[in-house]
Amino acid sequence: MTPQKAPTMKDVAREAGVALGTVSKVINGIPVSERNRLKVEQAIQALNYEVNTYARGLKIQKSNLVALIIPNTTNPFFASFTDHIESSLYKRGLRLLLCCADGIPQKEIDYLNMAANNKVDGVIALTYSDIGKHIPPSLPMVVFDRFFENRVIPRVASDNFAGGCLAIEKLLEFGCRHPIYIRFHSVFPGESDKRKDGYLYACEKYGLEPDYIDEVDRGDRLQIMKEFLEKHKRPDGSLTFDGVFSHTDYHGYMFYRLLLSEGYRVPEDVQIIGFDGIRKFGSDDDLFISSICQPIELLAEKCVEILTAMDGTPAPCLTLLPAQYRYGGTTRDGKR
Amino acid sequence: MTPQKAPTMKDVAREAGVALGTVSKVINGIPVSERNRLKVEQAIQALNYEVNTYARGLKIQKSNLVALIIPNTTNPFFASFTDHIESSLYKRGLRLLLCCADGIPQKEIDYLNMAANNKVDGVIALTYSDIGKHIPPSLPMVVFDRFFENRVIPRVASDNFAGGCLAIEKLLEFGCRHPIYIRFHSVFPGESDKRKDGYLYACEKYGLEPDYIDEVDRGDRLQIMKEFLEKHKRPDGSLTFDGVFSHTDYHGYMFYRLLLSEGYRVPEDVQIIGFDGIRKFGSDDDLFISSICQPIELLAEKCVEILTAMDGTPAPCLTLLPAQYRYGGTTRDGKR
Repeated sequence: MTPQKAPTMKDVAREAGVALGTVSKVINGIPVSERNRLKVEQAIQALNYEVNTYARGLKIQKSNLVALIIPNTTNPFFASFTDHIESSLYKRGLRLLLCCADGIPQKEIDYLNMAANNKVDGVIALTYSDIGKHIPPSLPMVVFDRFFENRVIPRVASDNFAGGCLAIEKLLEFGCRHPIYIRFHSVFPGESDKRKDGYLYACEKYGLEPDYIDEVDRGDRLQIMKEFLEKHKRPDGSLTFDGVFSHTDYHGYMFYRLLLSEGYRVPEDVQIIGFDGIRKFGSDDDLFISSICQPIELLAEKCVEILTAMDGTPAPCLTLLPAQYRYGGTTRDGKR
Repeated sequence: MTPQKAPTMKDVAREAGVALGTVSKVINGIPVSERNRLKVEQAIQALNYEVNTYARGLKIQKSNLVALIIPNTTNPFFASFTDHIESSLYKRGLRLLLCCADGIPQKEIDYLNMAANNKVDGVIALTYSDIGKHIPPSLPMVVFDRFFENRVIPRVASDNFAGGCLAIEKLLEFGCRHPIYIRFHSVFPGESDKRKDGYLYACEKYGLEPDYIDEVDRGDRLQIMKEFLEKHKRPDGSLTFDGVFSHTDYHGYMFYRLLLSEGYRVPEDVQIIGFDGIRKFGSDDDLFISSICQPIELLAEKCVEILTAMDGTPAPCLTLLPAQYRYGGTTRDGKR
């Protein structure tokens, strides 16, 4: 006999014949019609469903709003993260207040002040601004990737170190002998810095000479890539490297196009693996390039789970989720 | 002598040495620090700035929240629209509540009910759900593209008819003689239907035989495209058409990849123009394909402008903004 699985909120919704959001509202004490409330309560009894206390963490607060601070939604990674955060909040009867803060720290500070005034119940932030000193001490807040000095704010990220290491191992597995690394980074420390650590670790482990672009991102990426490429051409035009691990899919794709425009073949001459797992036209489309894919949906869910469970007891200060390699056309493994 | 330009909110912000959002708040009666309020008021006097009454339309309301109902933010068009709506609201001291409603009409209805309960001041919707009868009669609401029967809700859209016509004119200008049209559409009527009208009009005007895929989108697009392609192959493998106008960039890019996988060359054998103007990695990157580009930023700004100006006087029931052709690699004009 297999043990019986505990009923979920979905089971309650099915049993009651109502939407998942309705169940969530009843559980979180948000008003619904009398008829629906009764249906849900009966279904909870019938299934012997136990309310998950995690999902009730913010119940004593009142706005039922959570602010998401993100640079923008035009970058596909941020767009997908926003989408999953919204959906994860909705399941819990919470609503998303969106703050696209690209280059406007004052905008982020405005939202932190709103939070301080109890106009939002909590904040999830993916930020590259220097806002650490503006974060109210008692604010329920979770950050993605970013590290704030002298503050213990729970962070959620992918396992970037293992991901960086995996990228090199995959390139070696696919026949590369001289992989390089390309990074353009923000001035603020974060978990994604560990992609480089993973690269360097793999170099040492496999006896490779580290060789990389590692610059603060000031927008002159293509020029820097071109100069790097020139320096790595042999007299006969062939390249001294045969693999690229790019810190992001974006820069990897940029380098891919540069290689094609200079007459090199991908993946025949150079194989490329990026990081992020960006898909062309959204969630069900092809990857831009082969990539170490962040589990965006799980990362978003974890941010919301930790935020809503904040009840005074200590939250984990760092939660890492595994990233996975997927083929996207720029490596020599398999077919689409 | 050139006439002096009226000072804008930006000028006030510069003069006062404060952020644009601060000026907006002072104008909209939202509390800021005493010091900043005085700075802004002095700057308004010094510049003789006249407060734009449009920007004050929602002032008497109280939540300062506007809900955006959108299918998702993973589709790049929706993502960019969301980004610009957020920024346009922020300039006016308003905040964005994000509802990603993909396939969950109940979710949209929840937000409409919130609006009915004055928890949000207004709603901007880009929706493919049958929610017409749930829209509260007095709700300030603006819809993008979509038409609701028997209701006068101000609509904002691109000039899809002219855009469809322009796509064919561009294909002819670039040497096509037999352009076809590809569409997979929702079951709900909207302004984007007029892209086909523009195509048919252009066919008549230029003496072309209409030839197209026009199906309700049930997800079996690639199969339908393959069958269409088979039917248009001559015995020697060449195609009976030499141009494609695709209703969206997404489906145009899908057809582009299908053509490449079957050994056809783009733009040499077939030229392709899409619609929307989607860029690969966000706002400053290349287009996926040559496209009739919607002015996403202006469309978002117009939606917010109309919503915030709703003061009881009739708003225009339809506002169309022009779409523009841009080269994106799948046509024979110019270089990148």
